[in-house]
Amino acid sequence: MSVRIANVREVTKPISSPIRNAYIDFTKMTTSLVAVVTDVVRDGKPVVGYGFNSNGRYGQGGLIRERFAPRLLEADPKKLLDEAGDNLDPDKVWATLMSNEKPGGHGERSVAVGTIDMAVWDAVAKIAGKPLFRLLAERHGRAADPRVFVYAAGGYYYPGKGLSMLRGEMRGYLDRGYNVVKMKIGGAPISEDRKRIEAVLEEIGSQGQLAVDANGRFDLETAIAYARMLRDYPLFWYEEAGDPLDFQLQAALAEFYPGPMAIARCRTGCANISARLACCRPRAGRRAGAFRMAGIRCR
Amino acid sequence: MSVRIANVREVTKPISSPIRNAYIDFTKMTTSLVAVVTDVVRDGKPVVGYGFNSNGRYGQGGLIRERFAPRLLEADPKKLLDEAGDNLDPDKVWATLMSNEKPGGHGERSVAVGTIDMAVWDAVAKIAGKPLFRLLAERHGRAADPRVFVYAAGGYYYPGKGLSMLRGEMRGYLDRGYNVVKMKIGGAPISEDRKRIEAVLEEIGSQGQLAVDANGRFDLETAIAYARMLRDYPLFWYEEAGDPLDFQLQAALAEFYPGPMAIARCRTGCANISARLACCRPRAGRRAGAFRMAGIRCR
Repeated sequence: MSVRIANVREVTKPISSPIRNAYIDFTKMTTSLVAVVTDVVRDGKPVVGYGFNSNGRYGQGGLIRERFAPRLLEADPKKLLDEAGDNLDPDKVWATLMSNEKPGGHGERSVAVGTIDMAVWDAVAKIAGKPLFRLLAERHGRAADPRVFVYAAGGYYYPGKGLSMLRGEMRGYLDRGYNVVKMKIGGAPISEDRKRIEAVLEEIGSQGQLAVDANGRFDLETAIAYARMLRDYPLFWYEEAGDPLDFQLQAALAEFYPGPMAIARCRTGCANISARLACCRPRAGRRAGAFRMAGIRCR
Repeated sequence: MSVRIANVREVTKPISSPIRNAYIDFTKMTTSLVAVVTDVVRDGKPVVGYGFNSNGRYGQGGLIRERFAPRLLEADPKKLLDEAGDNLDPDKVWATLMSNEKPGGHGERSVAVGTIDMAVWDAVAKIAGKPLFRLLAERHGRAADPRVFVYAAGGYYYPGKGLSMLRGEMRGYLDRGYNVVKMKIGGAPISEDRKRIEAVLEEIGSQGQLAVDANGRFDLETAIAYARMLRDYPLFWYEEAGDPLDFQLQAALAEFYPGPMAIARCRTGCANISARLACCRPRAGRRAGAFRMAGIRCR
């Protein structure tokens, strides 16, 4: 059996919402949905892998349709196969997607490539006839663990949203079984954010832990002011205080914040930044303390 | 008189060429051409500003057409005007383009925004009825200098291109009045690149100076090996040895290379990386030596 990518389809859909974080609002937000259609037929239908990108960086239809899908469809199909030749090799697909791409420029391109990558892995698992988590575990010689760390990323700013609505939202996450919740900070004065944090901590009590996310809003002075406030509380992590690439800020901040901090710095291929923080490899020589992430290991 | 942006048009055009640098070939390369159409009429025709993006990162039609042009056209036109209200304010246009954009992700977005920015500045100068260099000088209280540093960026790898073709190319630049030329390195073995460099230096003699560009191809070991070779020659600069964001490599490399080095690290809005190296501000605290750029001042 040989496998061939018959088509790569993308549609960009609005995910309009009046929510906002410290940096942007989402009223015009869009996302890309990608289908990687293979020529493998199961139950009379072609096997299709699906991917989508996390909200926040808009759909990437132009890049996918004009650049990456054609590159994949024009590639020699044999060069996209694994050694046995009976399934796609996601690493080879990724290498093909990234051919003739200059280094750097890991913005929208990483979203476009990552969304296709997600769909390819979905197709690969479906062709292999097993869940992706099991396929990945087998490839890495590890026991497949059907349980995975997840958290509820919410706590956005929203017109008219007061402390009781925020508490209700977090209660809803606990009721659905989450034991880590995340809320946005930095979109209100620090005194108001302190009240929001205290309200959520009171609400979740010993049932859960709270992470906070500034979405890269702060300069160093503000990041430190928040660190001084935040260290009064047993937070799960303090995420993205400053610009994602401002390592100096992050390193300096570590002097002021003893707890775990999280930052996403994906060079390529991270479609869903929040879910895939684990794909960010801290580079050698950087202050490890600044890149600690609670409960998440870098692959 | 009030000014309004009536339309923003983009077309993506192929600039196919068999040239290649150390990282990519250009057979499928495209570029975006942008026209910012205003409602100002001169000689019976609307004033139109034009922009294009440098080759290397592909056209950005999707981002421009789906995200940035609509954002500009939906903005309150008054908020895009300068204080006198009789011309566009490029800074306000830029701020509007970047609204609801998450920090980081400065890849394709910077090309899309920079290409529009270029067209806006062109329109502003045309509306003001003076060349852009004069308009910029007046705004910054400096004498307008009609002369500007330029160099000929060529020396690409090309099928069948030997030393004599390379020398002929460089001779052509000198004949056209350039006194600094640039060639690609890192796309051939180091011994071959040494011969290419020696051939070009012999060709240009005292008529010009030579810069070399590795286009981000090297790891630290290779970058240092090249530094040891390159420092035998009086080069104008050694450009983009490693990944554009690998500051550690760049800082370490400065220990091995005494001459000027160039690197482009534009966070936003650099449409034409080569021409606009000057827009990259080295951040405070970084080793200044690693970011020296001959003859180019950061704004």
